[in-house]
Amino acid sequence: MANLEFGGIAGDRHFGVTSLADARQPMYPRGTEKLNLRQITIVSEEELSLIAEELGIEYVLPEWLGANLLVNGYPELTTLMIGSRLLFPDGTGLICMGENKPCNLPGQEIQKHYEMEPKLATRFIRAALKRRGIVCAVECPGKVYEGDEVQIFVNNLDNPMQ
Amino acid sequence: MANLEFGGIAGDRHFGVTSLADARQPMYPRGTEKLNLRQITIVSEEELSLIAEELGIEYVLPEWLGANLLVNGYPELTTLMIGSRLLFPDGTGLICMGENKPCNLPGQEIQKHYEMEPKLATRFIRAALKRRGIVCAVECPGKVYEGDEVQIFVNNLDNPMQ
Repeated sequence: MANLEFGGIAGDRHFGVTSLADARQPMYPRGTEKLNLRQITIVSEEELSLIAEELGIEYVLPEWLGANLLVNGYPELTTLMIGSRLLFPDGTGLICMGENKPCNLPGQEIQKHYEMEPKLATRFIRAALKRRGIVCAVECPGKVYEGDEVQIFVNNLDNPMQ
Repeated sequence: MANLEFGGIAGDRHFGVTSLADARQPMYPRGTEKLNLRQITIVSEEELSLIAEELGIEYVLPEWLGANLLVNGYPELTTLMIGSRLLFPDGTGLICMGENKPCNLPGQEIQKHYEMEPKLATRFIRAALKRRGIVCAVECPGKVYEGDEVQIFVNNLDNPMQ
């Protein structure tokens, strides 16, 4: 079970209604306090399999990528458009803020588990592009349970959601 | 001068880090407390002129639409993609949450100023589609002054910002 509050998951390193600007927000000086919209990261089982396949390893665990939630049955998770909503059975709602672009930290973590494979850390970035899942903000707090069915409301540019 | 805080402009009816779900968020029961990402509304002079032209009236004032900010020199403001940033000279930053879809309340306001023109309230909805400006959340608080030059960082799906 995960308890999603405004700001994310208490104790998680990405928790906070605000956060400090980093290299991902080059329009602000580094360290500026800004709204935190990268509270929750989600990956899909299917995309993790594709990453593992591309890297020539058996599997990639979601925790190696620091993911907060793992979904299956929605293979194209990473393409989910910004502004889309994910709704859980108890009413908990997340708003998708777009693709989580891969950096090489998860690759370094993967490398630790496959010491015989060459250059996983750098190869990860390419293998994980458009497959590394999404970042979300908690729009409506609540609890998420293992096995929950997620309803996905896909945003689209022609008829954007509000 | 407008003082933009986390949550928007203090005293404005859309101010708040959270707000209550309404008809625009049908995935939540009405009245549910949720993250407020519709804090600031922005319109463009050029689009207001197009609306006025379509309605056959002389002008439409931004305050009739309840707009918080008015810009010029960026005529296609309403098409600005969700996730784009607007940066002001003092470092104040807004994140665009997409098109503000027209309802008939601003049209009723316009009607009050042009009593001789027929059916402005209902005609407004069609005339204002894709021209009614955008809604934003305050990403980085600060002050915005009349005449400020705005830098616009356009988000795009192929290379989404974070």
